[in-house]
Amino acid sequence: MIPESYLDLMTEKRAIAHLATIMEDGGPQVTPVWFLYDGEYIIVNSAKGRTKDRNMSARPQVAVEIIDPDNPYRYVTIRGRVVDIVEGETAISNITDLAQKYTGKPEFNYGDEVRRMYKISIDAVYPTK
Amino acid sequence: MIPESYLDLMTEKRAIAHLATIMEDGGPQVTPVWFLYDGEYIIVNSAKGRTKDRNMSARPQVAVEIIDPDNPYRYVTIRGRVVDIVEGETAISNITDLAQKYTGKPEFNYGDEVRRMYKISIDAVYPTK
Repeated sequence: MIPESYLDLMTEKRAIAHLATIMEDGGPQVTPVWFLYDGEYIIVNSAKGRTKDRNMSARPQVAVEIIDPDNPYRYVTIRGRVVDIVEGETAISNITDLAQKYTGKPEFNYGDEVRRMYKISIDAVYPTK
Repeated sequence: MIPESYLDLMTEKRAIAHLATIMEDGGPQVTPVWFLYDGEYIIVNSAKGRTKDRNMSARPQVAVEIIDPDNPYRYVTIRGRVVDIVEGETAISNITDLAQKYTGKPEFNYGDEVRRMYKISIDAVYPTK
């Protein structure tokens, strides 16, 4: 569903994703996150108890904007749903993969946090013209 | 309400804002926008009929993330409400000011769009540590 001409934003470039979730009062929250794209889902990672974790656990509707770090006028916006939340080894392996993508090293100090991995479906994609 | 140490993101730097609004179905939308900060409100501009215009007209709760273009790990996230929507000369003057900030020229070709200016209250601010 991601146009081929935008796949560089999803994979090679270390583009940051801007993830919007829904608060309990129905208003939005938006924060930058690391992400991976597996060809079907957007994968993000957070820690249990954080605002975005609580939001995604209770209200699966999310939006993601991914913007070209070299050109802020080139981006895709996505609307989707959190279809799976995973803890444990899978979530820890995922944050290590994210660290590899963004820092070049497969190391992430998560201390005593309970890490969670979220799979986000891509229900609609809006690329810039 | 914006910490003094983050005012550079609000003014001097040409940081892009990532604006989250609420769709009719209660899910979020997020898109990059130009913004100005007048010391009290965040000011953004769009055209009548666009998704974010329809969302902000019907549902005033919004969130804004402003990220340092030189350091993606330094940002503020804001939750607020659209407290005023203005059309006409004021909105056109505002898009010209935004063009000046982001392109260096006070020129914006809005064609036959009805431009609208949105004043967003800053109800809560979350800077990075």
